[in-house]
Amino acid sequence: MEFIKSLQQYVSEEISKSDVPTAPSNLYDPIRYIMDLGGKRMRPVLTLLGHHLFDDNYKESISAALSVELFHNFTLVHDDIMDDAPKRRSGVSVHRKWNNNVAILSGDALLIMAYQKLQHVPRNVGKILALFNQTALEICEGQQRDIAFEEMANVSIEDYKEMIRLKTAVLLGCSLKMGALIGGAPDEDADKIYTFGEHLGIAFQLRDDHLDVYAKGDEFGKQIGGDIQANKKTFLLLSALERAKNGQKEALLATMEMDNPQEKISQVTSIFDELEIASVSAKEMEYHYNLAYQALDDIKSVPEERKIHLRALGEYLMNREV
Amino acid sequence: MEFIKSLQQYVSEEISKSDVPTAPSNLYDPIRYIMDLGGKRMRPVLTLLGHHLFDDNYKESISAALSVELFHNFTLVHDDIMDDAPKRRSGVSVHRKWNNNVAILSGDALLIMAYQKLQHVPRNVGKILALFNQTALEICEGQQRDIAFEEMANVSIEDYKEMIRLKTAVLLGCSLKMGALIGGAPDEDADKIYTFGEHLGIAFQLRDDHLDVYAKGDEFGKQIGGDIQANKKTFLLLSALERAKNGQKEALLATMEMDNPQEKISQVTSIFDELEIASVSAKEMEYHYNLAYQALDDIKSVPEERKIHLRALGEYLMNREV
Repeated sequence: MEFIKSLQQYVSEEISKSDVPTAPSNLYDPIRYIMDLGGKRMRPVLTLLGHHLFDDNYKESISAALSVELFHNFTLVHDDIMDDAPKRRSGVSVHRKWNNNVAILSGDALLIMAYQKLQHVPRNVGKILALFNQTALEICEGQQRDIAFEEMANVSIEDYKEMIRLKTAVLLGCSLKMGALIGGAPDEDADKIYTFGEHLGIAFQLRDDHLDVYAKGDEFGKQIGGDIQANKKTFLLLSALERAKNGQKEALLATMEMDNPQEKISQVTSIFDELEIASVSAKEMEYHYNLAYQALDDIKSVPEERKIHLRALGEYLMNREV
Repeated sequence: MEFIKSLQQYVSEEISKSDVPTAPSNLYDPIRYIMDLGGKRMRPVLTLLGHHLFDDNYKESISAALSVELFHNFTLVHDDIMDDAPKRRSGVSVHRKWNNNVAILSGDALLIMAYQKLQHVPRNVGKILALFNQTALEICEGQQRDIAFEEMANVSIEDYKEMIRLKTAVLLGCSLKMGALIGGAPDEDADKIYTFGEHLGIAFQLRDDHLDVYAKGDEFGKQIGGDIQANKKTFLLLSALERAKNGQKEALLATMEMDNPQEKISQVTSIFDELEIASVSAKEMEYHYNLAYQALDDIKSVPEERKIHLRALGEYLMNREV
């Protein structure tokens, strides 16, 4: 993980070096604010790793990497308005710290700044612009589906997985593939690294759902059962609703109406346990994790030892408890 | 104007041919809706005219033209949320017909679709992407300044003109220049056509302000004095506040507080007349109009007769009563 940490460090330095204009302050202050709130910088690191898999000069992909990070932050700012989320990372969300209009407009500017970074991509600009556009639009589709699910009584597991693929996974695939294209990967291998990222992304989101209920308490940053408390349609809940029999579904729906949070979390969890949801979810994660690694194995144009960093990152993401 | 009308027709046909996806409907229905609400298609026509000035095959610029129109509609959807505008063109604004979240997300998708069109630009993609990005960011800055002005007690004429330059004029310059670059214009002439559009845009917005008060009633679509009634900081009001002497400023500020709309409009207008604001505004328009035509005159790489359509469009825009 030393190399990955050095890439995180490099990305953070480049972000703090980038000179966002100062005026008008209500346009650019929120951009500086959200970019400085930190985060794991996972997506730009993937871009650099995607490049490094095929070529040593991964710094050539820094503009693409920063583009992906700006884009990701654009989605956070606008999603937080739509969800009226009060918090973001270690701070207050942009629309709560300023207001909705500021957050709309600063988000727009972040998206445009993401495209500005693409101007400095050293090769394959056409392919990269097309990939970025398609991914960006898919992410809007994913967000729209996520919003629509809140109002829907029945969401199928397939629909849910398609939503998380669009909302979360395609950006990981895109991040890696952009780096690969700049690093000179053959088209078929660029597609394989995309598939690696896509399935890793689905597994990553499934792990997020899983950790809400099955994280080891003291290591987990968020409160256990937050999704249960909010009746969030996660993979766990949807799987439980699908598998429930003989009155279990009614029992589950009834506990979802409970007021006392601790009791609600404990009762929903015990229904999950009856239905062996932890194992269903673990199997689903493993399925996508294996598809991801299969795609990585299929890349034959580079020696196996170049893949160690991507394998390390994948294992870290899947074994994380936070 | 026959040629310009044929270009409007061509743009409208291409817009109705473009296959916007159908699902998820809450993402794409608003996009179809706003694009079908019509409008003069002035910006895409400028792109085609910018190309035609240098080269006959102006249809090569259709993707760039559609990109500009998609971008313009993105700004309308998001601006209408920020202003909580109930109407747009002949219909209801997107955020009122659906809701704010739908309008935020559909607007985002419109912006991304604008960038998708740039994938199909046949040449000079790098230059065009850079120009488009810079213009898009300037428009965000213009919108932020416009919002900020509402809260400010003192807005200078210079600040106001810089705001309308950013919010309105740069997109006209950009539209023309994109077409010129695709049409193979030399860089210096591409810059001159940009300057033509920029000053025409400033004059166009000044004319908008002017027509609010001085339009011939029956030809004018909107109600006369709408800006006065809303105390909108227009070029007319700001010029009046700057020129007012000996209690005129206090009188103007007092009439701005009046409740009766007809009386308010009539009294503010009579103060404007005392201060000869109509002539101040006409002079300012002429100043920018002349700068625009100077830039057009300075383009030496094409024969004068190729400029007739741009001259006709400019004259039409400046003599319009609506």
